[in-house]
Amino acid sequence: MPLGPSDVEPDAKPGYPGGKAEGRATLEARAERLTELQELLYANGVAGTVDEAGRGQSLLLVVQAMDTAGKGGILRHVVGTMDPQGVETVGFKAPTEEERRHDFLWRIRPHLPQDGFVAVWDRSHYEDVLIHRVRGLSAPEEVERRYGAIRDFERELVDSGTRIVKVMLHLSKDEQRDRLAERLDRPDKFWKYNPADVDERAVWDEYMEAYRIAIAETDTDDAPWFMVPADRKWYSRIAVQELLIHAMESMDLQWPPADFDVRAEKRRLAAS
Amino acid sequence: MPLGPSDVEPDAKPGYPGGKAEGRATLEARAERLTELQELLYANGVAGTVDEAGRGQSLLLVVQAMDTAGKGGILRHVVGTMDPQGVETVGFKAPTEEERRHDFLWRIRPHLPQDGFVAVWDRSHYEDVLIHRVRGLSAPEEVERRYGAIRDFERELVDSGTRIVKVMLHLSKDEQRDRLAERLDRPDKFWKYNPADVDERAVWDEYMEAYRIAIAETDTDDAPWFMVPADRKWYSRIAVQELLIHAMESMDLQWPPADFDVRAEKRRLAAS
Repeated sequence: MPLGPSDVEPDAKPGYPGGKAEGRATLEARAERLTELQELLYANGVAGTVDEAGRGQSLLLVVQAMDTAGKGGILRHVVGTMDPQGVETVGFKAPTEEERRHDFLWRIRPHLPQDGFVAVWDRSHYEDVLIHRVRGLSAPEEVERRYGAIRDFERELVDSGTRIVKVMLHLSKDEQRDRLAERLDRPDKFWKYNPADVDERAVWDEYMEAYRIAIAETDTDDAPWFMVPADRKWYSRIAVQELLIHAMESMDLQWPPADFDVRAEKRRLAAS
Repeated sequence: MPLGPSDVEPDAKPGYPGGKAEGRATLEARAERLTELQELLYANGVAGTVDEAGRGQSLLLVVQAMDTAGKGGILRHVVGTMDPQGVETVGFKAPTEEERRHDFLWRIRPHLPQDGFVAVWDRSHYEDVLIHRVRGLSAPEEVERRYGAIRDFERELVDSGTRIVKVMLHLSKDEQRDRLAERLDRPDKFWKYNPADVDERAVWDEYMEAYRIAIAETDTDDAPWFMVPADRKWYSRIAVQELLIHAMESMDLQWPPADFDVRAEKRRLAAS
């Protein structure tokens, strides 16, 4: 059985003995490796590298979390160190009226990563089994149906050459209170504060239960979930960074060979 | 008369007395200011701030250049330091068949910045008066028509609240040869090399002339062109960084006020 929210301490830092200062140094040092791998992935996209089955490779990072858990910081300090040329970030907001008229995956599909790209989803199709379950935005049997639809959807993606890494940034309810309080203390943070966030705190346990079920239903070998403790922002960043590094290392990427005659091009260039 | 390529030395570093090491330190130090301003812009987008005419604000950076001039480095080391949440980068490649069937601005319009966003265009509608002029991809009278169409288009954008900064990264032909040669020397750079780049060198002067005309026709007070010397990558990066900082400073942005009762929210939060 996969781990759920209750199995992981939000203030833990599994696998990392150091503290905050060391963690920040690690983040900076490992950004180089992350960037190198992402360039390698992108290079293969540009070169059109495919496997025996004719598939290119790409990476999809799904980030889910309660508010203030640090999604923005992951985008900025982890995703933001990669070359924006090969990274596509999408923030999924509340669906529009048109989007609501379609199946829940309809608005998701246009954002699948192209070959060579890293796609990053800030919220995702999981909202349709999280808030929809907690707030009853869809009928229970529809929510049930969606777990299977998500498994099929992600399997299809993996089969077409996309690695999937799914992260839940796991924050404690107390830490969230502190972070919301900070927004109320600082006029330069008011814009980040939304009174609805306090309403959501009233159903915190229901959200944790919805996460537990969603993760149990959709944690597969091909599209695994990772519960990342998020009470320490610096820790969650290096944890997600390592997940990305590991995913790309497992792709066994090589620099694409020249598809032109290198010596002939050198002569042509020298004469130009 | 606006400056054209022949008025600017590609290896100059106007306004900056320091050297490379100092330039890199400047880039890092000023990234903080850039990021602060961009967050301010984004905050106002989120808050829905509008002026008397009901307009929000946004910023559009257009980057044009010959190959190897360093567009990628600008995206990574300047644009990449901002919060990806509020930045939308688009790379305009050669148009598809469908795009070619429409007016040249048709594929451009969907990528206008939303309020609060910084849009960055890696190539742009200017390709339609640059390569189209040099390679005769459109009839001369159509190219002529487009200068006016671009002026109208950009004026419309500015009128709706978007600041426009247009940059030509100005590289020398010799420096380009060196950079292409490096790609041919390093197997990890082969993927960046395109034999067509050498073909374009044969019409280098025609490109410079096309830039000169395009800039003369479309350099306006509202949507000015900046010729940024690009033989020194570190210089072109701090130059573009300053242009972005200056553009956002001129917006006179303030942190949006709370649209809720701060004290009441503090009580509600404490009780949650």
